[in-house]
Amino acid sequence: MIFGIAAQKIIQPSVTFVFRQHCGFRKISPLCTSTSIRQTISKKYSKMTYQIEERGSPNTIDYKLYIKNENGVVVSPFHDIPLLADNTGKVFNMVVEIPRWTNAKMEINTKSCLNPIIQDTKKGKLRFVPNVFPHKGYIWNYGALPQTWENPELLDEHTGCKGDNDPLDVLEIGYKVAKRGEILKVKVLGTVALIDEGETDWKILVINVEDPIAPEVNDIKDVEKHFPGLLKATVEWLKIYKIPDGKPENKFAFNGEPKDSEFALKIVSDTHEYWKTLLQKENTDGLSIVNTSLNNASTIDGEKAQAIVSESLPLSEPSPLLPEVDKWHFIKL
Amino acid sequence: MIFGIAAQKIIQPSVTFVFRQHCGFRKISPLCTSTSIRQTISKKYSKMTYQIEERGSPNTIDYKLYIKNENGVVVSPFHDIPLLADNTGKVFNMVVEIPRWTNAKMEINTKSCLNPIIQDTKKGKLRFVPNVFPHKGYIWNYGALPQTWENPELLDEHTGCKGDNDPLDVLEIGYKVAKRGEILKVKVLGTVALIDEGETDWKILVINVEDPIAPEVNDIKDVEKHFPGLLKATVEWLKIYKIPDGKPENKFAFNGEPKDSEFALKIVSDTHEYWKTLLQKENTDGLSIVNTSLNNASTIDGEKAQAIVSESLPLSEPSPLLPEVDKWHFIKL
Repeated sequence: MIFGIAAQKIIQPSVTFVFRQHCGFRKISPLCTSTSIRQTISKKYSKMTYQIEERGSPNTIDYKLYIKNENGVVVSPFHDIPLLADNTGKVFNMVVEIPRWTNAKMEINTKSCLNPIIQDTKKGKLRFVPNVFPHKGYIWNYGALPQTWENPELLDEHTGCKGDNDPLDVLEIGYKVAKRGEILKVKVLGTVALIDEGETDWKILVINVEDPIAPEVNDIKDVEKHFPGLLKATVEWLKIYKIPDGKPENKFAFNGEPKDSEFALKIVSDTHEYWKTLLQKENTDGLSIVNTSLNNASTIDGEKAQAIVSESLPLSEPSPLLPEVDKWHFIKL
Repeated sequence: MIFGIAAQKIIQPSVTFVFRQHCGFRKISPLCTSTSIRQTISKKYSKMTYQIEERGSPNTIDYKLYIKNENGVVVSPFHDIPLLADNTGKVFNMVVEIPRWTNAKMEINTKSCLNPIIQDTKKGKLRFVPNVFPHKGYIWNYGALPQTWENPELLDEHTGCKGDNDPLDVLEIGYKVAKRGEILKVKVLGTVALIDEGETDWKILVINVEDPIAPEVNDIKDVEKHFPGLLKATVEWLKIYKIPDGKPENKFAFNGEPKDSEFALKIVSDTHEYWKTLLQKENTDGLSIVNTSLNNASTIDGEKAQAIVSESLPLSEPSPLLPEVDKWHFIKL
């Protein structure tokens, strides 16, 4: 692995820190309570703390979630958050986009300045992933690895397909339901190679290093041992989740067989390198590489970054969801 | 079936009505929004409308949910809500205790005056049903049929076990996630005979008559046709849901084979008769038969009923939940 030479600043191990996230609601609500709880985590990893700033009305296309560092400076979850969370080269930062058991297809928006997390849309409508029986929403905490990029110009040597132009997707299997915009410290366990509508879309299986079971889960075989059925369900879920929307079932490289952690770490390393090349490109094809920490030509200062955030609507009450979001689809393959 | 001679007043079919439920929160919150939405349902069933009044802090032992009729009079969901929802004898009222995909073990409290829905406790702690992979919380809208009682003094002819002293449990399979305390109109599709720690605990499968697919789902075979895998998952869920709490797996009569709607309707009819005998008992062994509509010796007026509700704490902010509630348990039988 080549993470030792990664460009980002690695902060040395320290004692304890407070991981703080504010959902920004003016009044504590049932949903908000869990988002705004202050968590004290005993840590041997980075001192880095992150907060979120939500804008617009949740459940509308105006909703945006920005991430800020411990100094309150807006950061891009695509570019500013270090891929590595410590100096062992084995613990990574993960940006949570979709908490387990939820449906809203929230994504780091690669094209918007500072890459807020927003909800994907389809034909102008907010996109919710269908519940496909027996599963409810996403079955992992779903997110992305910062400072990675699946290069759409390269044919993947394993899949023969081009990359999907996004940061690398991560499926976190620990027991806590993470919060949208939370930055987890995770270790890599393995990967499955989804071919999503003809594009390579690696899904990296990880576990939160803070999970009580994490010390016993280090590779793909440990997943089957401690989470029997989850690997099969993972492939099944990824295979069928678009069928209710009229799409064909997804395909996999390696016949859907998950690859081990060593293999997965190579994918992480490769996509981190692709991300570095993205930063060097003269034409990024619409992807925003604006950042507040990399000290390159696309770096802006905190004040300018906050001004960009402030251009969007202030946070307001969530819009109600249609009951269709709760529909359970029964698929027989 | 003998429902034609049921004691309760059946209100004749009518045109449309507004089904109204207030969650009582002073401010709309993300969770509250869905609970407080006013629903207009085109109806050929009863004109009866119900509201809820919540008391205490949700997620504490002080929390209570009372049900009121269209005149704002508190009713007992055990005794006052008619079992039958129309005069065909085929549509029943169902009291929703646990919305699909939630975990809090909420129940009509048979012992408290006016039988509010409260959360079950175990060793003084609030009881949450564990999430057993691949399932998330309850996989149906779970609730009870009013005016039914599983008689603990009778040996059930099918199971050889005594009744569990509760109203009959119902599993509603329609696609909407119901609201706690909502009264659904349902039709009976079949039943499975759970033996829960040695007691007969019939689970009646029903579907909301307002579900778009309801006209095509009339018996147990239709469940397998339109909801493939749900019957198997139902038996599996009921078998293993107590294992993470250290209990053995539950058993079933008929080897877990579901029985058809005719059989299930007989169970409903029987337990309705047992409920009538309960009302006649001199000693109800701690079960409260206080009501506001039956015009018997246990009937109280609306003012007295409201005074009982007002004795409990007013509704306040929900208490935060421990993340353990979200744990996913992986059971290998």
